[in-house]
Amino acid sequence: MGSSRRTFLVNGAALAVTGPALAEVAVHQRLIRLDTHLDTPASLARPGWDVMARHSFDTDLTQVDYPRMVAGGLDGGFWAIYTPQGPLTPEGLMAARDAALLRAAEIREMVAAHPAQFELAFTAADAARIAAKNKIIVYQSIENSYPLGEDVTLLRSFYRLGVRLVGPVHFKNNQFADSATDTSKWKGLSPKGRELALLANDLGMMLDASHASDDVFDQMAEMSRSPIICSHSGCRAVFDHPRNLDDARIKKLGAIGGTIQINSYNGYLIAEPPNPDRAKARGALYAKLENLGSMSPKDAAAAVRAVAAGMAALDKQYPVPKADFETFMRHVIHALDLVGPEHVGIGCDWDGGGGVIGMEDVAALPRVTERLVKLGYTESQLAGFWGGNVLRVLGKAETARKAG
Amino acid sequence: MGSSRRTFLVNGAALAVTGPALAEVAVHQRLIRLDTHLDTPASLARPGWDVMARHSFDTDLTQVDYPRMVAGGLDGGFWAIYTPQGPLTPEGLMAARDAALLRAAEIREMVAAHPAQFELAFTAADAARIAAKNKIIVYQSIENSYPLGEDVTLLRSFYRLGVRLVGPVHFKNNQFADSATDTSKWKGLSPKGRELALLANDLGMMLDASHASDDVFDQMAEMSRSPIICSHSGCRAVFDHPRNLDDARIKKLGAIGGTIQINSYNGYLIAEPPNPDRAKARGALYAKLENLGSMSPKDAAAAVRAVAAGMAALDKQYPVPKADFETFMRHVIHALDLVGPEHVGIGCDWDGGGGVIGMEDVAALPRVTERLVKLGYTESQLAGFWGGNVLRVLGKAETARKAG
Repeated sequence: MGSSRRTFLVNGAALAVTGPALAEVAVHQRLIRLDTHLDTPASLARPGWDVMARHSFDTDLTQVDYPRMVAGGLDGGFWAIYTPQGPLTPEGLMAARDAALLRAAEIREMVAAHPAQFELAFTAADAARIAAKNKIIVYQSIENSYPLGEDVTLLRSFYRLGVRLVGPVHFKNNQFADSATDTSKWKGLSPKGRELALLANDLGMMLDASHASDDVFDQMAEMSRSPIICSHSGCRAVFDHPRNLDDARIKKLGAIGGTIQINSYNGYLIAEPPNPDRAKARGALYAKLENLGSMSPKDAAAAVRAVAAGMAALDKQYPVPKADFETFMRHVIHALDLVGPEHVGIGCDWDGGGGVIGMEDVAALPRVTERLVKLGYTESQLAGFWGGNVLRVLGKAETARKAG
Repeated sequence: MGSSRRTFLVNGAALAVTGPALAEVAVHQRLIRLDTHLDTPASLARPGWDVMARHSFDTDLTQVDYPRMVAGGLDGGFWAIYTPQGPLTPEGLMAARDAALLRAAEIREMVAAHPAQFELAFTAADAARIAAKNKIIVYQSIENSYPLGEDVTLLRSFYRLGVRLVGPVHFKNNQFADSATDTSKWKGLSPKGRELALLANDLGMMLDASHASDDVFDQMAEMSRSPIICSHSGCRAVFDHPRNLDDARIKKLGAIGGTIQINSYNGYLIAEPPNPDRAKARGALYAKLENLGSMSPKDAAAAVRAVAAGMAALDKQYPVPKADFETFMRHVIHALDLVGPEHVGIGCDWDGGGGVIGMEDVAALPRVTERLVKLGYTESQLAGFWGGNVLRVLGKAETARKAG
């Protein structure tokens, strides 16, 4: 890990924009750099959207594509099959299942369409093998197990398709678990949620407690045969939000060999005073994106541009406090100070609401390395932070695997 | 349909091998030519196997790839998600489900990897649109619904992935239906099989009675709101085999607006005297292909070549009668005589055991057109035979669709 010299520097011209000094950039470029929560697969369903083209958040609302990954030296990570929480009805569960299976296929189609630039990863060892070819590493993850419906065993199908990380729940409680952002229904995991956690262990998948309630975190940490992780969470001691982890639980992750992967989602980094007018206007704007899939590429791009422009106008009309790079780094550094560099990494929620002033997309990631080098972290510690830690956990999940 | 002149002739050099006269070739090339049963997706799981390379059955055991499709003027068809019948146990059903979902993803990956040559088709209208771009048309089908397990609604997920044709059963009875080649268990469809047929109707999928028992054929023809088809079956009046249709049922297909798509599978075309020694040796040979997926591309190719050589040796040691092109055409012509060219087409079981002497792979398909032109069939009749008939049925399935 991190020992092979990489040739990304030939593509590194764009790094100048973000400003890190050359020495730190060189360190950054030598490591395997993974983000454990990429919501980028949602972009794949946009007609005409091309992962090989460089987009900008201002006009496209995306933060990850191949050119920006190269520019920021992001080697890949866990590409999320995200499902919004819907009704716990047979119809709702089926629609979620159908959409999630299609999303998994779309991730694989992205890789198949660009075999020289992307490769599917299934084992911890695959990361170094793929990075050595200068290709993007595509692990898959499930954010919200709602689409598994009443049949936990469908997790096996997702495993077969490549999923290696599974989080039981999202914003709202579901059939498996309580959400960090809902009132407790199950006091943690439901009986089916326990089945899910056991099956994930048996399959050799990592468990992800991001979005889960504290009780779910505690129960999964207790019952799992391999370390759990939080794929995209911050520190509650820095900003008190239920989506962030308190110090005791971050220490618990350290003690069991897991990792907290720091999020850059504004609302979990700093206080956003409630503004119902803004929320309503924002909801109306985003509703315009719901039928993108049925539009022509041209119309879809125009709709996205219009929503992006609308969001910019909204930010002027109803300004909200915006976290900056230093705020994000306070969460990173707090976790590092608490449990050391073997148990911290990043999961920035790119394309899922992440990004801060000064780190608007993945092209800015060398800034993180620059800061950590200045703080005295060694290259080998940074190799863990950027990828080695989560790969160590995945390796332990593989060892704990029992399924045939 | 068939009105636009196609440019495949630039690729038509290989046609000279099969010998049809130029005029008939020109007719062939003007039509949209579909085969309703391509087992080619099984090749996609072979490490290193490239659909863009020209292979030969003698060394590779395959019959379909892009170069041979172009040579034979096959525009595409229904690419099967085939699952061998396994045990009706929870473990067996799960393994089948997982493998079938992966196979659907692999079909989509093939298309994604070659966007200039292949395109996924979802509606009857898509065929002409895709053919006009000189691309291969990729509809998906399910051969054997065994992987749907106890939950028929999983058919919705396959629909979402692109499946538009579903057959309930294969060689052996399963949870949905009696097989044509097993002793009756359900006297046709099981209660779950009726659910399956109704859901296929609701989704706008065609029902496929190939491999199903006569009772299943009768019950599906009776209950379906849109015409059923037999995607790869012959005529029992020409060769008496339970996998073939008797005249009454072929007429029934004609009466309800369906279509019989003639198979080229040796054992259904002529008598193969039982030979347990050959069967045992053949089984041992094919067992060597079971772990292809875990081999390196080089080892996989070597294993396939060895089995192909073994099969050739077996054919010398234990010769079996082999059907020729004329035998295949007797089935085609019998069906045409019985119900007319609006209700007949081809489903040759390529890569699934199909092929006859003189039509060893899809490159030989112009011979079929040549024969039918000589018999006096008009270009518009041939347009139906080669694709229009099954697309008409798919259009009716779309009209019968009820699902939201």
